[in-house]
Parts: sequence; C-alpha cells; structure tokens
Amino acid sequence: PLTSPTAEARVLVINTGGTIGMTIHDNVLAPTANALVKSLRKLPILHDAMYAQQTGLYDYYSYENTLVLPLSKDKKRIVYSILEYSPLLDSSNMTTDDWGRIGKDIEKNYENYDGFVILHGTDTMAYTASALSFMCEHLGKPIVLTGSQVPIFEMRNDGRGNLLGALLIAGQFVIPEVCLYFYNKLHRGNRVTKVDAGSFNAFSSPNLAPLATAEVDIKINWDTVWRPNTTAKFQVSTELNRNVGLLRLFPGITSATVKAFLQPPMMGVVLETYGSGNAPDNRPDLLQELKKATDSGVIIINCTQCLRGTVSTSYATGMVLMDAGLIAGGDMTPEAALSKLSYVLAKDKLDLDAKKKLMGRNLRGEMSVDLAGAKLCLSDS
Amino acid sequence: PLTSPTAEARVLVINTGGTIGMTIHDNVLAPTANALVKSLRKLPILHDAMYAQQTGLYDYYSYENTLVLPLSKDKKRIVYSILEYSPLLDSSNMTTDDWGRIGKDIEKNYENYDGFVILHGTDTMAYTASALSFMCEHLGKPIVLTGSQVPIFEMRNDGRGNLLGALLIAGQFVIPEVCLYFYNKLHRGNRVTKVDAGSFNAFSSPNLAPLATAEVDIKINWDTVWRPNTTAKFQVSTELNRNVGLLRLFPGITSATVKAFLQPPMMGVVLETYGSGNAPDNRPDLLQELKKATDSGVIIINCTQCLRGTVSTSYATGMVLMDAGLIAGGDMTPEAALSKLSYVLAKDKLDLDAKKKLMGRNLRGEMSVDLAGAKLCLSDS
Amino acid sequence: PLTSPTAEARVLVINTGGTIGMTIHDNVLAPTANALVKSLRKLPILHDAMYAQQTGLYDYYSYENTLVLPLSKDKKRIVYSILEYSPLLDSSNMTTDDWGRIGKDIEKNYENYDGFVILHGTDTMAYTASALSFMCEHLGKPIVLTGSQVPIFEMRNDGRGNLLGALLIAGQFVIPEVCLYFYNKLHRGNRVTKVDAGSFNAFSSPNLAPLATAEVDIKINWDTVWRPNTTAKFQVSTELNRNVGLLRLFPGITSATVKAFLQPPMMGVVLETYGSGNAPDNRPDLLQELKKATDSGVIIINCTQCLRGTVSTSYATGMVLMDAGLIAGGDMTPEAALSKLSYVLAKDKLDLDAKKKLMGRNLRGEMSVDLAGAKLCLSDS
Amino acid sequence: PLTSPTAEARVLVINTGGTIGMTIHDNVLAPTANALVKSLRKLPILHDAMYAQQTGLYDYYSYENTLVLPLSKDKKRIVYSILEYSPLLDSSNMTTDDWGRIGKDIEKNYENYDGFVILHGTDTMAYTASALSFMCEHLGKPIVLTGSQVPIFEMRNDGRGNLLGALLIAGQFVIPEVCLYFYNKLHRGNRVTKVDAGSFNAFSSPNLAPLATAEVDIKINWDTVWRPNTTAKFQVSTELNRNVGLLRLFPGITSATVKAFLQPPMMGVVLETYGSGNAPDNRPDLLQELKKATDSGVIIINCTQCLRGTVSTSYATGMVLMDAGLIAGGDMTPEAALSKLSYVLAKDKLDLDAKKKLMGRNLRGEMSVDLAGAKLCLSDS
Repeated sequence: PLTSPTAEARVLVINTGGTIGMTIHDNVLAPTANALVKSLRKLPILHDAMYAQQTGLYDYYSYENTLVLPLSKDKKRIVYSILEYSPLLDSSNMTTDDWGRIGKDIEKNYENYDGFVILHGTDTMAYTASALSFMCEHLGKPIVLTGSQVPIFEMRNDGRGNLLGALLIAGQFVIPEVCLYFYNKLHRGNRVTKVDAGSFNAFSSPNLAPLATAEVDIKINWDTVWRPNTTAKFQVSTELNRNVGLLRLFPGITSATVKAFLQPPMMGVVLETYGSGNAPDNRPDLLQELKKATDSGVIIINCTQCLRGTVSTSYATGMVLMDAGLIAGGDMTPEAALSKLSYVLAKDKLDLDAKKKLMGRNLRGEMSVDLAGAKLCLSDS
Repeated sequence: PLTSPTAEARVLVINTGGTIGMTIHDNVLAPTANALVKSLRKLPILHDAMYAQQTGLYDYYSYENTLVLPLSKDKKRIVYSILEYSPLLDSSNMTTDDWGRIGKDIEKNYENYDGFVILHGTDTMAYTASALSFMCEHLGKPIVLTGSQVPIFEMRNDGRGNLLGALLIAGQFVIPEVCLYFYNKLHRGNRVTKVDAGSFNAFSSPNLAPLATAEVDIKINWDTVWRPNTTAKFQVSTELNRNVGLLRLFPGITSATVKAFLQPPMMGVVLETYGSGNAPDNRPDLLQELKKATDSGVIIINCTQCLRGTVSTSYATGMVLMDAGLIAGGDMTPEAALSKLSYVLAKDKLDLDAKKKLMGRNLRGEMSVDLAGAKLCLSDS
Repeated sequence: PLTSPTAEARVLVINTGGTIGMTIHDNVLAPTANALVKSLRKLPILHDAMYAQQTGLYDYYSYENTLVLPLSKDKKRIVYSILEYSPLLDSSNMTTDDWGRIGKDIEKNYENYDGFVILHGTDTMAYTASALSFMCEHLGKPIVLTGSQVPIFEMRNDGRGNLLGALLIAGQFVIPEVCLYFYNKLHRGNRVTKVDAGSFNAFSSPNLAPLATAEVDIKINWDTVWRPNTTAKFQVSTELNRNVGLLRLFPGITSATVKAFLQPPMMGVVLETYGSGNAPDNRPDLLQELKKATDSGVIIINCTQCLRGTVSTSYATGMVLMDAGLIAGGDMTPEAALSKLSYVLAKDKLDLDAKKKLMGRNLRGEMSVDLAGAKLCLSDS
Repeated sequence: PLTSPTAEARVLVINTGGTIGMTIHDNVLAPTANALVKSLRKLPILHDAMYAQQTGLYDYYSYENTLVLPLSKDKKRIVYSILEYSPLLDSSNMTTDDWGRIGKDIEKNYENYDGFVILHGTDTMAYTASALSFMCEHLGKPIVLTGSQVPIFEMRNDGRGNLLGALLIAGQFVIPEVCLYFYNKLHRGNRVTKVDAGSFNAFSSPNLAPLATAEVDIKINWDTVWRPNTTAKFQVSTELNRNVGLLRLFPGITSATVKAFLQPPMMGVVLETYGSGNAPDNRPDLLQELKKATDSGVIIINCTQCLRGTVSTSYATGMVLMDAGLIAGGDMTPEAALSKLSYVLAKDKLDLDAKKKLMGRNLRGEMSVDLAGAKLCLSDS
C-alpha cells in the first residue's frame, strides 16, 4: 500500500516570474512557461531524482511540479512543489492585485506546507515582500521571497544559490516572518530595499541587521526574529487600497505638483522628505496643500529619502509637517510605508483615526519604535 | 607701506547656513547671525590669533570675517574669509535662486581666492553640489561643500573636522571640481547622495570612488580627478529652469498621477525607475502619458531608484521607456540629473534636440559613459 | 567652608604616553612631559576654564592636573584629572611590568573615580587592553583605553575626538568593562586588534560587534555589555607571568624553530595556526616537539592566524594538535590569548590542570563559547 | 578525419587537493582520488556532455580528465583538463617542495594551454599564490588559484562558483599574473591573506583593490593588472630556499627567543612588527640579537602585523630596526615577504647585497613602492 514518505519537510514554491526562470529567445531574455521546473529537474543539487524514484515520490505527489532536495546535513529531506503563474509576471508589472493573488495562494495552501518560497523579479521584490508582511496576519510559518540577477539557466548565476538557501530556510527553521533571501543573507521582508541594479548583493536592510546569514553554516539571529504574541488563526487580508502613492521632495517642488499628486482618489501618500523628516518651512503654499489633503482625510506618512535614518516625532525640525497633519514614519522604508498604507486603508471597519494610529504603530517589525530599539540602544542626551 | 602677507593661500568660505553654525536657544537649535565666525575665532585649530596679530593680517584684510589656520605640515598658511548669508538658510528651503546666488558670489570673488568652501545644511547639499557643478563652466579652482550633522558649538561634533578638511583641500590642492567633503572623504559633488540621517558618515558616492581621503595623510586620487580640456574663461551660468521635477515609480502608480505630474509648466522630469531602468510594459495608459509629454517637448530622464546602478541604452528591458521618448540617465544620481535638467533647459540658444543630446552626454564627470567606464572596466559578454 | 562641587562625574585619565600627546622637536615627533595637560587647558571643548574658576574647582582639586569638560547635553559635568607617567612610554616598549603599574594605579584610585581613561600608544594598545581586562577582577566601573594616530597638537587629528568620546563614556555610562574607544566606536578591550597602521579607523573587533557607537548620539548596545554576576570586591591582580610567547605557523616551519621557541623558561605559548585551527598532520617531528612541550607543562593555545574565525574542539581538522596537548582558543584574538596566559600562569595557587581549564573558559567576554554564541546564533547542521 | 575543435580556449586545472574536492567517509571529510572529475562530469554547468560527444572531444583529448564548459555568453568554449595530484594534499602540509612541483607542472604544460587554474586548500593558499608569483618569471598567461570553504559535493557550497569563475577568467582574459579568485573577486596572488576561517568571503587584499569582480558581469580593472615590460621567455624558477621564517613581535618577547629563532640554518626572516614598522627601542638585548643576525648575513624584512599598512624607510619610528640592518617591507603581506625571501635567497649567482636590493624592490606587483603608489596617491605633508 502507498505510504507517505515521512521525516520530510514540505515547501511550496510559488513562481511568479522574474529573471531567475528566464531563458534566451532570439538573443532576448524572456520568461517561458514550465521552463524552470524542467531545468531544476536536471540540476542534481536541486533535485535528487534517484530518491524520488526509490521512495515513489511521484506516486504520492504530482510528477509535474514536485522535486526533492538531496539529504541535508542534518538528514532532513525537503520536498518542494512548484506552483507556477501563467503567464509569468515581470516584477515591473506587479500591482496590488498580484500581491493579493500571492496571498490567497499562500492561504489556500497554508496547512499543507511547512514553509513557502516566492520566486519574484528583483525590481519590485521589496514592495511585494513588504505588502505580504502586512497581509499575512498571525503568520506562524516562514515565507521567503527570492529571485536572482542572472537566470538559473546561465552558467554563472546567483539563482541556484538563492533558491537553495531559501528552500533550506523555509523547510528547516520556524521563522514566522515574511523574509527576503538574497546573496547568503536573510532579511525581514518589510525592511529591505533594492540598492544595486548590477550586483549579486542587490538588497540592503539599512535599519535592521539580517535575520540570518548562510555561508559555511546557516546562522539564525534568533534575538531579531519577530515573534507574534497571539495564537490567533493565520489569515491573509487580501483587501488592499490602490489609491496610495509615493512622492519624493526635491528643491523647488511646486505646490501645483503636490496638489496634483494629492488629488482624489489619492487616499494615502508616503512623502519622502529630507534627512530626519525635514521639508521647507518657508513654503506656506506647499504646507497648505499638505494640510488641505490631511484635513480632507488623506493619510500622509513622513519617511526620509535617505537610505538609513529615522523620522521621529521628537524633532523640532519636522514640526511644520506634523502641524500639516503628517504622521512620522520612523525608520520604515518607503516600500514598507507604501504597502502598509495600502493594507491599513483597506480596513473598512476602522475609522480614519484608528487607521492613522495603526500607521504609527509597529505591526510586523517594520519599524523600531516599540521593538528592538528600546531594548538594544540607549541614546545619550 | 602695507604689504600683503606672502606664501599664503586664500580661501573664501561662503556660509549659507545649516547645522554646522547653529546654536541653542530655549532648547532649540537655530541659526544665529555672526555666531560662526565668533566661535571659530576662539578655536585654536581653526584660527591662529597670534599669527594674525604679528603679521598685521587685520590691517590688510577685514577683521570681522578673516581668520587664518595654523601653519600646515608643509609650512603653508591658509587665510580664509567668511561671507555669511543673511538670513542664514535652512537647506530644506534652498531653491534654484539660492543656487544662483552662491554661483554669483563665487564668480564675483573667483580671481581673489585660491579655493572656495561652501557651508551648507546636509539635507539638500547633494542637490546644491550637483547644481553648482553644472553652473560653474571652465572651473579651474576647487569648490568644496561641507557642513555637519552636529553643530560646531557642541562638545562632540563633526563640524570642526569637516570645515578644517575642506579648508586644507581648497587651499592646497588644485582640484578643479565642485566637491563635497564629509567625514574624511572628498567626493565629486554631482556623484553624492545623502544616505544616512543619523551618522557622521552621511554621504555616499555610490558609483564613483572618492577623489581623496584625509586620515593620517591627505591622499588625492589624481586619476579620478576631472580635468577640463579647455582653457576657456571661468564663468557661472546662473540661469536655471525651475520647471523640473523628480518622480519615483511605484507599483500601482496611476496614469492620472503621472499625467498630473507632467502638466505644464513642467519641462523636465527625472523618472526614478526600477532596477536598470525598468517600468511596467503592460500599462499602455502610463506609457501613453509619458509619450505625450515627451512629444510635447518635456525631457524625461530615466534614472534608477537603486542607490547603485546604471540605466543604459543597450538593455531590452527599458525599451518601452526609450520608445516613449525617455533618455537613459546612465549612472547619474537623481540629484545630478535633476539639477542638470535645470541647467540645460535654461540654455535658451539651444533647441530641444541639442538639449536632449546634452542630457545624454557627460558634462562634468556626472556619468561614467565617455569617462572612466571605458578605460577602467571591460565587461565580459 | 569649601564644599565639593556636586552632580559631577569624576574620571581619572592615566597618560602612559603615545602619539596623542607628542609634540614636534627638530622635526621629530616625541613625548614631552606635561605637554598634554597644558595643551588641553587651551582647548575649549576639552576644558571649561570659566566653570573651573567660578566653582572654585582648583580650590578643591589640584590645579596642575584637573580639568573639566563643558556641560554635556544631559547637563552633567565631567571633571577629569590627569595622572601622567614619567617618563612617558612608547607603546612599543610596554611590558608586563607596565601593565602591572597601570593596574595598580587603577586599584589605588578606584574608589575616588567613576571611570578611567588610559591614554596609550596604538601599537600595543590591544595587548594592554586585553591584559587589563584579565587583571581587573570584579570590575564595576568603565576603563576605557584610547589614543590617536595623529597628535592632539596637530591641526587635523583624531586625538581630540578619541579623548572626548572616551571621557564621555567613562563618565556617563556604567559599562563595567575594560574597553577600547577609537574612531567613534567602543569595543571590548580583549576583542580588538590593530588592523590599520595608517588610518583613523585603526582597530577592529573581528568577532564581536561594538559595545557602543558615538556619532550623532552615543548608542550603547546593552545586550552585548558584559555583566559580572558576582558582587565581590574589585581587585587588580598584577601578578603576571612573563614567560609567554606568540608563534605563527608558516609553510616549512622547522621543528628546530619550534623546539627553540618552546625551550624553558617558556611556560605558555599562543600558536597561530591556519584556518579553523589547522597544522600539518604529516609532520611527526613538529607534532612531537609540541607534545614534548605540553607534556612538560607548557600550555599551548591554538588560535587562528585569520582575522576572523574560531578554533573549536569539535573539528576533526585540528585533531592532531589536540592530540599534541594544545587547548582550543575559540575566537580569542592572539592578543587576548597571550595576555590571558600571562594572567593565568601567574595564579600560583592553581595546579596545571586548573590553569588549563581556566584558559579554555570564558573569563571576561574574551571568547564566545559560554557567552553570546549560544544565545545569539543557532547553527544548522 | 579527426580534426581539432577550433575556437576553444584550453585551461589546465591542477588539482592539488583541499576542501573543494573532499567527500564524506564515516562522517569525516577527506580527499578521494578521482572524485572531483567524476563529480564535475555530472554537473551540467561545469561540463557539457552533449557537446563533448558531438564534437568528438574524447577522440581528440583524453576522456578521463577532459571536460568542457557550456558555451559562454560571447560564444566561446573553454575545454579544461584536470591534472590531479596523487595523493591529494592538505594545504596545511604544503611546503616549498610542493610549490616547486606546481611550478614545474605549469612550465611543462605552458605552451599547450591558454590559462591555468590551481585548486588548493584555503589554509595556505595565500602563501602558495605568493610563492608562485615570484617563481613564474616573464609570465604571459593567467594562473588562477582557487578552492572553497565547503566541498563541491555538498548541496550549498562555494566550490562550484569559485571553480567556474576561475575557469572563465583563466580561459578568456589575458591577465598575465598569478591570481587568487574567491567569492566573485579576483585578487593579485601576492597581495592576499586569509582573513576569515568561517565565511565564503575568506580572502582579503588589504593594500590593493581587486583585479576583477565577477557578479552580473565580469569586470576587469585593467589599470591595476600588472604588465611585464619584457618579452623574455617564460620560465619557472623552482629553486627555493627553505631556511626562512616568520616571527611576530609581542610585548615581552625575550632576546633568547629571538636568538633561538635566528640561529643557523635560518637565512631569511620576516619580522612582524607593530604599526608602521615599530619595535622596542629600549631593548638593546633584542636589537643586538637582530644586528648580530643581519651582520652574519641573515636577511630580515620588517613587515607590519597590522592587516593594512606600510613600513617605509622614511619613518623615524622604525629607525632602530633600520640600524639593526632590517629591510623595510613596504606594504607586502607577511605571506608575500616570506615566499619572496625563499625565492630571492635561492638565487645563488647573486651576492648578499644584490639579494637585499631585490627584497626592497617591487618584483611582481607585491609592493606599491615603484608601482601604483606614486601614480595614484599624492600625500600632503
């Protein structure tokens, strides 16, 4: 009689698209349906064909999309199934709808897997990782986004290493977070930003140390891993508000530009300010437009355009923006703030004040305010 | 008869404002007129009062704003005069008008000084440094912007070191560039961006190595220093077009937002795209708005929102933006691209095509295309 | 009647010598007696002369060697007295005797001060910091070593910043450790090594994150600060064994060299091995010499010659050295291991086995074994 | 008729041993004869079996040890043959004899290959790379050493990437140097040192920038690549003197230790001094031993024990060592200085003075003195 293989961890890989699975056609890189799984099946480090046959893996799981890693150092097997989107998506084209779809697919399969890996183009991976971190409520299993700068089919590439590391972490460690794994580092998903368009080391988590490093050994920084303090049931909130935007301050920005940007249906805006949250204080025209918007119910978050830094409520410098009704974004990345707005604004049962409060609170480790900051650092004065 | 002290280098310090010269009033940091020079006069490393008296420096120069550094290691004297703006400016409030004013002040004093130091708030220093680099045509002397994260009056501060390093470089080395000096590094001014709101090491030059480091010794990287190949007369072009803007792409950006941003009088826009210059290619609505704008004469530059990276014309990925009439921004920072637009668009004698060509060419070392790139790197294929 | 000024912290600065206090004579840098305190008295950021006069500081403390910092941000005063060694010492000349003298001076003054700053040449500062960390038993106050690459008298120097930071930390924070402060970072003293002979950023703590960073604010990483779990009385153990040495493995090292190095009176040796603690296993001549030495009572510690890394007891690779009687040094620096040997070997009441056990145990946070390692990292297998 | 495949580059891989080719036996990693080539044959990115069959590669070259990479991006084929040492060597066991053997194997095969890859354990790879750089006179082809921290047979490893990168560089670029390739960087072989025992990023070139980086593209820094200015015939000087040693200064080092170390047959010693080349100047006993040795013909090179730094002849501080007859080692690594001694001392036709002069001169880019230093940096004074 057919029995399930035991002592195996199961990981669901959702292949949304991106460079990692592209192939060359007429000298142009492009996505190809089913190419990834076919290709992985030929790579011995990513699929142990002999084990699959011997254990009757394909009798139990579907042949088409199920693979199994070689035995890991601690004698575990990771069986992974690939759910490929059709058509495959270019990450430049990703929208809130696509975030919702990924969320639903995780929810649907949540009970059947020990962890999840999301393959995704690098261009908007930080936005998607942030969004998923908010959408996934009471998460108890790892969700690891990854991808690559060079396709897995090329001779020298970063795709194999990224996928392998993501699978090993998703299958072996109970890190109940939405993470992003790239170039041997695991980051919290809502803390990263793409900082290099041409290097394997493409992502940075400027305001938080990595959750793990995977070099000779995989080392988890358990003190940093986020622990939910509820035991509520996991659910994915796929309701997302699309009327959100990102506006970067620059010298000479006109009030007309700001006004146009803040027009309905815009409901939430991340304003990328200078330094620790600064804006011109000699521009009543500008401040008035901001104030008009917040008065009419638009939520505006004050985030810095610097890679590293914090916008706090205690600085005098950003006071004019507080007066204009903006909310301090702390050390959130613009990507995290934008997707948090999208998530919070969709909470129809909450009134505006409640939404504003949520925006200023730490929900998923995306800001340091109530979190590690207090514990880890004590600033002199 | 009164004779000028010889063997001295002369540096003009233009104090526009910023944290470096702030003092505390009622627990709030604020700029105070003439406070900086008074304070410097009391700091022995920044003013050699005995030398000033002995040499009759104040008979020759004005007492109020002239100071002299102690003898440098190679037995040189740097006499510096401070031209302070009234009122002092918060860098968040800086506009093209202020860039023009600084430029005019340099031009007016160009023949009388060996070098120039511009004290400036850090928030928009990268924007101003970029703008000045374009405005200063046929520059033959160093112009060094600096400032600090902590006021020079505080006990532990970065202002003294930054000012001292800037003075020593401006007074001793013929680096005919607009530079930015911070935390012991000299960068090309149009290559920097503020990356840290809370650290002394606030600026990064992501796509170009420093021009100099100043630790135990000052080491100039002469191979990187930009050399003009003309001997034309120095002049400052203070004509700047204000109708320029900076727009960052984000998932779900609407064509309405883009359309509103591109409305007249907007004439030049830096579009911060994904990765190596990517944008959604499944959004005809969005691309149409961009195309409409470029067709009507708006110049749009494609720059990456990644800290490091290059948008080249050779990638297929950014093709839809090329088709929409955008110009590849290479490895220019958004700050450099924005101020270059402001400078180029003001060249009234040039037609639109000539302006577009200028935008794609390397004018002041702001992009690597015709510069070091070809010489220093050879990419495999 | 004369009353002591209150609300002041008191710091003792022991000036042993080094570049920080040197002056130029006939074009050569050299130490000069009493030059440092005279010079500091003229620097307003390092001495508030007006406060000293107004409060009658000199009536209470000695004029000659007492200074006071300006008011700190949190309204504290740090009064510091300088105890200068005569003659001033070149750190290259430092020996165990000098370590003992510093230790005794700390012990003698322990009750009268809130913290201690040791000015020291950079060349052997890591050795002295390590030694003091072991000698100071049941330490409850901060001891901060610092110095500089460029003398405090020079125009552009790192001495003022280093001294100021060390004073502020020693006077304001209860960090009961021997630390080393350099270039805005506070490190545990027995974790550092000098890595750069020509940069302000001269020290590295390769296997432990900094205890604090001092940029715009001073941020203490309290989770890393070492807390003694005893309340025993502070004492300094100045008994140190001088018959210790440091030997680095290299390809082709002869057994004659090793034998000569291990001759009596040598009693303790740090062997700098390859990688994770490796040595030739095909060299019975060499291994025999090591075994002979350990058999005769020499304690040999196996440390890596790599900047970063750990020699553990669990690796098969270093097995031949274990068999030869060596003790795994974990992630101790060679400097820490050497001075720990010097300290442990002088414990006359302990027999050889007890000394060996002490060498393998974590005494002052110098190795990660029983400390942070277990807590912070979980290695996969 | 049998024809040679054209348009192929040929690389000889000399597998001396090391972690990269180890396999597990009874839970212990150990080298296994012929295991590497068998394993590579199964990895599609490192061997294109179909191409080998179709082109009759095995009719032309030997089947046992010849493999071929997939087509590279620029349509080149790299055919590589593996010459495996028997028995495989642990790098901890490597001696001058092994360096000589590798040199001879390169010389013997020099005309038949376009480039060479040396697989080597990481522990002494920096020593071997340095030695080969001196032994190879008038080198006109790339020799690239590499290896790994984790065996190529393990699931997650750095061996495949390192071997692949080394092959692509050795087969495609005319870099006439002995190099070391690790973790996506190509370094000059006599500039590296192993700095991390537990990370993929194990090597550092502290005083010279990388020759190339291999991430999304392979970028060669041609300005740094060393160009011989002779066209003399390539030859390998396998004569090496074994009577050389490495001695690190430490506080309290006794003259007895130094004397013992310098005894005959010792002929050349690298003394790792403090900082910029400093040693105790109050230790006539020590200095006398050094002087005695140099007087009797031992060549002693003064190198710093700091990772980064330079020992120059111009500093007063190291003067006592100059007086004792030591030669300034500039910014040579100890590894480079040791193997250079071994090479120079074996030049029997040269007298002592000529040998000393050679030691102070830049022979293969191992020091910056007559090289880039002058061109790239100008120190202020």
